Amino acid sequence: MFESAEVGHAIDKKAFRKEQATLRERLLDVQRQLYDQASFPVLLLISGVDGAGKSETLAKLYEWMDARYLSTLAFTAPTDEERERPHMWRYWRALPPHGRIGAFAGSWYSTPIGQRIESEISRVELDRRLDEINRFEAMLVNEGALLLKFWLHLTRSGQRSRLRKLEGDPLTAWRVTKTSWERTRTYDALLDAAGHVLRLTNTSWAPWNIVDGTDDNYRYLRVGRELLASLERRLGEKRVRKRVFAPPVAPVSDDRTVLSALDMRSLAGKRYESQLAKWQGRLAELVRHKAFARRSLVLAFEGMDAAGKGGAIRRITEALDPRQFQVVPIAAPSDDERAHPYLWRFWRQLPRWSHVTIFDRSWYGRVLVERIERFCAEADWLRAYAEINDFEHELVSAGTIVMKFWLQIDREEQLRRFKQRQKVAHKRFKITPEDWRNRDKWRAYQKAAVDMIDRTSTGRAPWVIVPANDKNFARVMVARELVKHLERALRL
Amino acid sequence: MFESAEVGHAIDKKAFRKEQATLRERLLDVQRQLYDQASFPVLLLISGVDGAGKSETLAKLYEWMDARYLSTLAFTAPTDEERERPHMWRYWRALPPHGRIGAFAGSWYSTPIGQRIESEISRVELDRRLDEINRFEAMLVNEGALLLKFWLHLTRSGQRSRLRKLEGDPLTAWRVTKTSWERTRTYDALLDAAGHVLRLTNTSWAPWNIVDGTDDNYRYLRVGRELLASLERRLGEKRVRKRVFAPPVAPVSDDRTVLSALDMRSLAGKRYESQLAKWQGRLAELVRHKAFARRSLVLAFEGMDAAGKGGAIRRITEALDPRQFQVVPIAAPSDDERAHPYLWRFWRQLPRWSHVTIFDRSWYGRVLVERIERFCAEADWLRAYAEINDFEHELVSAGTIVMKFWLQIDREEQLRRFKQRQKVAHKRFKITPEDWRNRDKWRAYQKAAVDMIDRTSTGRAPWVIVPANDKNFARVMVARELVKHLERALRL
Repeated sequence: MFESAEVGHAIDKKAFRKEQATLRERLLDVQRQLYDQASFPVLLLISGVDGAGKSETLAKLYEWMDARYLSTLAFTAPTDEERERPHMWRYWRALPPHGRIGAFAGSWYSTPIGQRIESEISRVELDRRLDEINRFEAMLVNEGALLLKFWLHLTRSGQRSRLRKLEGDPLTAWRVTKTSWERTRTYDALLDAAGHVLRLTNTSWAPWNIVDGTDDNYRYLRVGRELLASLERRLGEKRVRKRVFAPPVAPVSDDRTVLSALDMRSLAGKRYESQLAKWQGRLAELVRHKAFARRSLVLAFEGMDAAGKGGAIRRITEALDPRQFQVVPIAAPSDDERAHPYLWRFWRQLPRWSHVTIFDRSWYGRVLVERIERFCAEADWLRAYAEINDFEHELVSAGTIVMKFWLQIDREEQLRRFKQRQKVAHKRFKITPEDWRNRDKWRAYQKAAVDMIDRTSTGRAPWVIVPANDKNFARVMVARELVKHLERALRL
Repeated sequence: MFESAEVGHAIDKKAFRKEQATLRERLLDVQRQLYDQASFPVLLLISGVDGAGKSETLAKLYEWMDARYLSTLAFTAPTDEERERPHMWRYWRALPPHGRIGAFAGSWYSTPIGQRIESEISRVELDRRLDEINRFEAMLVNEGALLLKFWLHLTRSGQRSRLRKLEGDPLTAWRVTKTSWERTRTYDALLDAAGHVLRLTNTSWAPWNIVDGTDDNYRYLRVGRELLASLERRLGEKRVRKRVFAPPVAPVSDDRTVLSALDMRSLAGKRYESQLAKWQGRLAELVRHKAFARRSLVLAFEGMDAAGKGGAIRRITEALDPRQFQVVPIAAPSDDERAHPYLWRFWRQLPRWSHVTIFDRSWYGRVLVERIERFCAEADWLRAYAEINDFEHELVSAGTIVMKFWLQIDREEQLRRFKQRQKVAHKRFKITPEDWRNRDKWRAYQKAAVDMIDRTSTGRAPWVIVPANDKNFARVMVARELVKHLERALRL
């Protein structure tokens, strides 16, 4: 794996200066184009052996490029806000927007490699993390990111002599820490772990560039050239190719689906009051229970217009402390949100420990409205199922409890509610022409919902299909299912 | 102060129910209008005596209103990310955008009142904080926010009986903590401190509403009515009145100003190299010094187009570790930014300890380009001087080192640089028609810059006026002044 980076590369001062001049000019050009187009972000990962010149390479890029559109994203020990979210949260919040370059000094590779060297995680656990990383990077690339990964390599003796050299210069001595020397003692372990990691994450969509770090000039030019070539190639492409990582959805064989087969039930007013009070009371205790102190809860509500999402959400929030929950309505994204992968706006809203975030419409918009209205390409919504499963899996792995509710009403019931709304409270609930248009696409939405439920209902993050023609029944069912799932998840 | 809230108010169940029905309907209406207009945010502060019903009132508002556009902003112990910024940072980051209501459970009043009761701060220090709060609230109101402050009051015996009642009900018992009972023992101290705080912060732009908290129904309706009336009044206003808190700027008596009187100096190439290396070396040591470990640095660069801001910034960043700095270019705000006070985008970017943020153009745009291009009203940029001074004062008080550089070139030099840019690197540095237009407004910009320097150069956050016709001289001067100020600030 590392052999090619050990054959001894070097570039002399004169040749370096000459190439540097044109390289710098061209890098500034492409950086400017990148910023003007603002159609994709660049993620630059610089990893490698200690002393192989990660910091120096980064500093060189700053010397060559425009620091205004280049950010270094450094990660040391997680802050307490980071510790209370899934471990990828800190990277999500740092993702550069379209048009910018984010250089990751320390990345999602640092922790698993470090933990493997210290034997804190097993080989199996490492492989699980690498699979997660591959899927994360596939998502980034599919979302348009240009992802460049560099591994700066040194031989064992090369590492020792580089560290001595850095220590000798007062300007760089601070970079050599006790840990750096400790790492030389674990050189074999690092190479073993890194070799494995690089091999398993050397994907077609995000390959590694292994660079000999011994000679400064050679290293700088290798990284600079690769960055320039990748940017020029990408900026020159007329249209970004769309890859499909998922097979097309099988056509529904007949009209009998989990939705059409649903038994619409109802609940009389008196039983409704007592049942609702019962489940709300249990819920109020659960979210204040000490078992929830280091957990969090994410709920997603989906359903046709007027399905009763708002009413069901209100019955949940009544049992919660206003200081512990947030209801997030999902409408058109802001321009900050549009400049990031579509899941970014949901990552932003993840709750801290003992907090609850309730999404009124959610990331499932990708496979519902965006699919049907063709706001994204077929390839985009097809891959979204797997990305959404990954997202929820990461949440659940971090201790977050995730539930999704589909509130099912039939077409006649929707019409009845539209008319009622127009009559009763015409100012507040405007029925827009869009609502009527969505209604015309009833069958398409139902089909999309069935596909969604088939592909994203998992044991750890289940879909609850709620017969919602009767509001009483729906609200009690939502509260009851939430309580039951919470009790299971909190082992109470 | 509290007498009116002790005369004994109560509303019976029937009267409450009747009023509640219409109140709720109208609240939902105005909330919808607020959201549709999205032209201002609402900040709702609910403070008061322990047990006076702060949480219950908040919960009632959720029962009445649409939780999707209402957020509770709760503050407990600051996180480590918050501890490393000025103490108002946590409130800035929580500010609701236009169209939303943010209910503050705990606010900028909680800490000073608590600290005063515990005698952790002196009366003088308390008054200093209150002055800061008044200025902050004036800024919010001037920026269009509707700010409503409620103090829920209880008599001493009323407090004890409320706490006993809460403890008796299993659903609310968790709300009564050891601290709550401790607070009953400090009732007099609280009333003394709160009385003082309320008196000094009972401003014309953000008055307090003191509400008797004894009777639930009365309390709910008082808060609900006030919220409704304020929102209806504000939504009904055709145009928001602009207040001017600052006198107009005095006309310049002659053409001799700090800028026109500036002596343009230069530095030969050889001396430039050695001088620059010297100051960069000192800077590199300073930002890695342990005295900087719990400090941070904020730099703002301003100047006419082509004044050499980018080049001067580059000479600074060369001495820094890429992992510790961020260069933030300021262009048109994003829509998330436009939905907040104009200083919000700068608060967002404040560095953590041992980090540096360099702004290429800054908050001073308010009194430069926005003044001249009339992007904001005269009243807005007039009050900005004081707001900016407050902002920088808060930064400095929190240990941040703040410096501002004005790079001064003359009109002929700008023309020469424009022409050179067009010739040498036509792709990279496009001279836009806007650049030529700005050039025509040279005198206006110079006058605005002089006003800005006169009104915002403080000992703790000084302006450095840099003669920049000669790039060598300018770059060395920036590095030198930065080093000298850093040494003073770090007491080295």
